[in-house]
Amino acid sequence: MPDKLKIIFIPADQMKSEFIRILKKLGFKDDKAEKCAEIFTLNSLEGVYSHGVNRFPRFVKNTKDGFVVPDAIPTLVNRTGSLEQWNGNLGPGPLNASFATDRSIVLALENGIGMVALANTNHWMRAGTYGWQAAKKGFVFICWTNTCPNMPAWGAKDPRLGNNPFVIAVPYQNDAIVLDFAMSQFSYGKMETFSNEGKKLPFPGGFNKKDELTTDPGEILETWRPVPVGYWKGAGLSLMLDIMATILSGGISTHQVISCSSEYGVSQVFIAVNIKSLPNFPVIDNSIHGIIENLQNSIPENENTRIRYPGESVLKIRKENLKNGIPVDRNIWESILAL
Amino acid sequence: MPDKLKIIFIPADQMKSEFIRILKKLGFKDDKAEKCAEIFTLNSLEGVYSHGVNRFPRFVKNTKDGFVVPDAIPTLVNRTGSLEQWNGNLGPGPLNASFATDRSIVLALENGIGMVALANTNHWMRAGTYGWQAAKKGFVFICWTNTCPNMPAWGAKDPRLGNNPFVIAVPYQNDAIVLDFAMSQFSYGKMETFSNEGKKLPFPGGFNKKDELTTDPGEILETWRPVPVGYWKGAGLSLMLDIMATILSGGISTHQVISCSSEYGVSQVFIAVNIKSLPNFPVIDNSIHGIIENLQNSIPENENTRIRYPGESVLKIRKENLKNGIPVDRNIWESILAL
Repeated sequence: MPDKLKIIFIPADQMKSEFIRILKKLGFKDDKAEKCAEIFTLNSLEGVYSHGVNRFPRFVKNTKDGFVVPDAIPTLVNRTGSLEQWNGNLGPGPLNASFATDRSIVLALENGIGMVALANTNHWMRAGTYGWQAAKKGFVFICWTNTCPNMPAWGAKDPRLGNNPFVIAVPYQNDAIVLDFAMSQFSYGKMETFSNEGKKLPFPGGFNKKDELTTDPGEILETWRPVPVGYWKGAGLSLMLDIMATILSGGISTHQVISCSSEYGVSQVFIAVNIKSLPNFPVIDNSIHGIIENLQNSIPENENTRIRYPGESVLKIRKENLKNGIPVDRNIWESILAL
Repeated sequence: MPDKLKIIFIPADQMKSEFIRILKKLGFKDDKAEKCAEIFTLNSLEGVYSHGVNRFPRFVKNTKDGFVVPDAIPTLVNRTGSLEQWNGNLGPGPLNASFATDRSIVLALENGIGMVALANTNHWMRAGTYGWQAAKKGFVFICWTNTCPNMPAWGAKDPRLGNNPFVIAVPYQNDAIVLDFAMSQFSYGKMETFSNEGKKLPFPGGFNKKDELTTDPGEILETWRPVPVGYWKGAGLSLMLDIMATILSGGISTHQVISCSSEYGVSQVFIAVNIKSLPNFPVIDNSIHGIIENLQNSIPENENTRIRYPGESVLKIRKENLKNGIPVDRNIWESILAL
């Protein structure tokens, strides 16, 4: 969240219109500008500003620089039953990923489960977007992407692994439960925010120059050594997600993603499962409710702690931002208006 | 590893014969006794003694107590294309899981990808077993199980989540790369070992009575508050794995697994992908090799640190134990001989 004094509140519709205007100027056709603007607006509406409005200027720059090809669409490379490989042709990452999500759903409708592996695509912005998209349509869904090398292997000093965001989503009460997490304990964006505010991280987030774990975000931004979630376990998970994305899509792997600023050409995987075909489908929502209810009946560590399920806070933020407008740093919004 | 003075080395063949003898006495038919003994022996051969030879007496007890039904086999509940639900009928967990793994492979051969969700089964012992099984046959493979509640939700004090072991496996150089990890940072078994040896954990493994993170394993064994991998992230992943296992299989969820000692009736998911059907199959092994080579060229934190990939140490232990025999605590082995 930006400095309170500098915040302005932009209604979602207005934000979307502005994005559409800029995307059309960049060469996006009407339907593509509409869809892409919708995703950037939704990410902002749901509180992931870092991969919504705040990221939009960089997306525009990457498109102007030729890393994102506005009118490229994915092409089918191979189909074997419920497993498909697609080439993203360096089209807009959010559009490619949204397409692949829907395509995995089509495959799941045909065969119960569907997998789409997408090579040669661009940064998809917020990973969770595609989880919400599929789960709100009623599908169990898993997806992940590889990234540029931004995290060291366990026991190493130089970044060779990606933080490879990973998503699991399930439908719940006409909305969704969505887990969306990257393999580093804290994102660079979050560490920068803590650093700018002169705050310590709540838990060790990486290593300092003396190879010690530290809660000082500034020290980690210096070494580029964020700690993987669960130490060696998250490092292992990152590696496996990269290997799978690479070989299933026939695309490039983290060590071949040459630039972390434009971060293009990445590989992604999308898996949808059609739970409507299951004999227990009528009781599934109840069954999930039982699990969530049990979780929320936990004994909290502090009286005021509310035990949350993944994505629960998104519902709250979405509601607030729909009502009050999306909070944006005035400078960022002005730079967007000038695009 | 047991106390060195008490270690004896048992050749794998001898261990397997002994297991077969005991399983037959318990009512296992020849082929089932053979297969089950093979899995317990393999787990020991590959260094996971806690879910091999050391766990065998408890498996025998659970069978005698009626929690494991020796001659039960899985039955098909529902098929929709490449997605199947099976009922494990409380048969031996390792046999059910091994069957479900092979079944997911059959589905993948038909349709590129296959998913088997298994309800009403028993503890599968070592999660990685099924990863090695599928990947050595040439398949990309993901599986997981739910467990009894043995880990608190994030911000909570009482265990409501399972540590839900999760596996990703890929074929590599006629063997496999296998990531096999539970959602708590350290297993109870590992914490007991550290505690018995009077050692601290290398990283905080859970919370003490004062709600503080601690490296003292004894304090965590007292509170039953192991820390999830990556704090809130691993807690979220545990929840999602449980929800998926429950709804996809139509089985019970962690909060319904009533006993942590017999831990029966659990739900599991198995996903196989047939990479042989992909146009890039001929270059896949090379592609993985490139990723591994890049990883191992990392700058190590210490000169003597070797950067490992998941499962790499299994290859070494397997070789050593094949040569020297499987190290077993003499008391445990004698208790097995007496069964």
